[in-house]
Amino acid sequence: LKLTLNKDRLNESIQHVSKAVSNRTTIPILSGIKLEASPSGVTLTASDTDISIQSFIPIQENEQTIVQLEHPGSVVVPGRLFTEIIRRMPSDQVEIGVDDHFRISIRSGSSELELVGMDPEEFPLLPKLEENNTFSVQSEVLKSMIRNTIFAVSTNESSPILTGILWTLNEQKFKFVATDRHRLSTCERIIEADPQHALHNIVISGANLSELQKLLPDQETMIDIVAADNQVLFKMGSILFFTRILDGTFPDTSKIIPKTFAAEIVVNAKQFTDAMERAYLLSREEKTKIVKLTSIGNNKIEIFSSLSEIGKITDQVDVLRMEGDPVKISFNSRYMLDALKSIDSENIHIGFTGPMSPFVIRPEDSEALLHLILPYRTAN
Amino acid sequence: LKLTLNKDRLNESIQHVSKAVSNRTTIPILSGIKLEASPSGVTLTASDTDISIQSFIPIQENEQTIVQLEHPGSVVVPGRLFTEIIRRMPSDQVEIGVDDHFRISIRSGSSELELVGMDPEEFPLLPKLEENNTFSVQSEVLKSMIRNTIFAVSTNESSPILTGILWTLNEQKFKFVATDRHRLSTCERIIEADPQHALHNIVISGANLSELQKLLPDQETMIDIVAADNQVLFKMGSILFFTRILDGTFPDTSKIIPKTFAAEIVVNAKQFTDAMERAYLLSREEKTKIVKLTSIGNNKIEIFSSLSEIGKITDQVDVLRMEGDPVKISFNSRYMLDALKSIDSENIHIGFTGPMSPFVIRPEDSEALLHLILPYRTAN
Repeated sequence: LKLTLNKDRLNESIQHVSKAVSNRTTIPILSGIKLEASPSGVTLTASDTDISIQSFIPIQENEQTIVQLEHPGSVVVPGRLFTEIIRRMPSDQVEIGVDDHFRISIRSGSSELELVGMDPEEFPLLPKLEENNTFSVQSEVLKSMIRNTIFAVSTNESSPILTGILWTLNEQKFKFVATDRHRLSTCERIIEADPQHALHNIVISGANLSELQKLLPDQETMIDIVAADNQVLFKMGSILFFTRILDGTFPDTSKIIPKTFAAEIVVNAKQFTDAMERAYLLSREEKTKIVKLTSIGNNKIEIFSSLSEIGKITDQVDVLRMEGDPVKISFNSRYMLDALKSIDSENIHIGFTGPMSPFVIRPEDSEALLHLILPYRTAN
Repeated sequence: LKLTLNKDRLNESIQHVSKAVSNRTTIPILSGIKLEASPSGVTLTASDTDISIQSFIPIQENEQTIVQLEHPGSVVVPGRLFTEIIRRMPSDQVEIGVDDHFRISIRSGSSELELVGMDPEEFPLLPKLEENNTFSVQSEVLKSMIRNTIFAVSTNESSPILTGILWTLNEQKFKFVATDRHRLSTCERIIEADPQHALHNIVISGANLSELQKLLPDQETMIDIVAADNQVLFKMGSILFFTRILDGTFPDTSKIIPKTFAAEIVVNAKQFTDAMERAYLLSREEKTKIVKLTSIGNNKIEIFSSLSEIGKITDQVDVLRMEGDPVKISFNSRYMLDALKSIDSENIHIGFTGPMSPFVIRPEDSEALLHLILPYRTAN
């Protein structure tokens, strides 16, 4: 391998793949980035076996020559070190050469480096996915659906399937569900997919989706999604992002979500969130983070929390609309705050089914986004 | 105690003193903030016994009423919780009351809190310092002198005196010295003090000066400094900052700094720093962080570092001026980078006294700031 390429473009591609560079040193090859130079361009690949990212640098881009290729070839470079070295190279061009023993030489301006590389044959191959199972989603839609559900995934590794978000696609309804057994978040959007195209029990790790989210472009770009048996591939321009699908069956949660309520309230999102933030301050020390919500007549609710030997706080929030029975319920304030932060609308609708039964939080004007919380059973 | 005061102004004062709120729970009273209301205003005090900070809120400021005082009095509030609660209060006015059992009630808009306070009599008293030992330094000067030397203090608690910066004042020469035995940084400025006014062996903890630095205003304000037997007080407008003086005698370093050199070079600061940053990447894994600097003829130096089984890097930097013997020396690249970062001038002067003897880094155009590094003794 021998080539000269634009430093900034190389840096950009390194940044794309760096999230998949493994930090564990048990499998040294995975701490590297595979560099492959061919007559069409340079491909960078990183993989920690859970996610794999590939970024492509074409020979030419916008009528500018990015790569001057002398000899094609490939090598695995030490990931973290290569990342930092390229960023600090003095010239805007970087010359990279590799000999038969995978010794890498790098030149840029007055800097000369020699690095010990690794055999690219040892690097894991990316899965080949059947592209006929492809659909497209706007980058912004994908981002917001991840943001609206990701906080509800379980962090408990003893039920691995719940550390992921369930994806389903059915008659153009694209839906995410996440639950940690104490709460559930779900979000649904209509997308312009082939109505025949369906997805079932595709569960993707929340951690991997959080990495994907960082790579999703801000613009209204369409992201191509290819779902195969045990892998999903996201295509974002010159970047490919592969993630493993979690093994197991996601629990059926469709019957948990109540359709009718014993009481319903509508509150201003900001006022309610601010009061909840304050109540959280006195409840966060305890694992349960309990706050109590009580209706006062038909136009106010009271939010209360206390911490023994420290103090207590009471807040009153005006209710914009209220129907049904009086409300008196205790729940985890962290769960409520997570749900509230994912809702952008001005007003919040909360539907209660009883002091011991799940309640539902959603934007006043939409049922496409919905959060369910199980109340805490208190003595008083 | 009973008063109503402006929330933003209270927040500001809480921020000032919060750096002195103790995180250790062994002495509960020190995790609090003392609030004292008198007819002139409200004083907040925090102290972790090492540093103490006081911030004063006057009854009136810029012809606006800040505090409406009903009953003077005092109480110790729980520090961290009070800080976060006040920041999140819904109204721009906060009403605070305290009963005879130090139970605190806080009201703001629709929020009502009760907190368990502590007896202000148990809070440590601030030292009373003799104000006749006062001099003044521009905030900017103090900031830059701390920044220029603080990195060289020792982090080794076995010689506590070296965890501090030595301050001396002699015939208007205000001087800082810090050393960890492997390197030394010193900085001197002429200030407009009484020529009779002198300071000797005042050693202040680097950690405390780093907290002071965060409170120093950006403007060209004069800071009044009162040095007493075992405390130094900094007066910054309505803020008082007290720090303990470290016990012990700072070593005499005046004879260590060489006045004549076997070789001298002048290099461009940016080029040299960039090359050093790159060499650091391959040396940082080892405790010694060794790089090698070698002169090549009269117009270049070479900077080299290597990491076994990983690789090596060589950089060449143009020398703007060179005098004396050829140079070949090894040293800790982290120490060099720390020194370089504190120098703002375009060119750097380095004076060498031999491969095993200390060398001196300073701005080309000034001797007021000076860094000394002991080289590393290598076999080759």
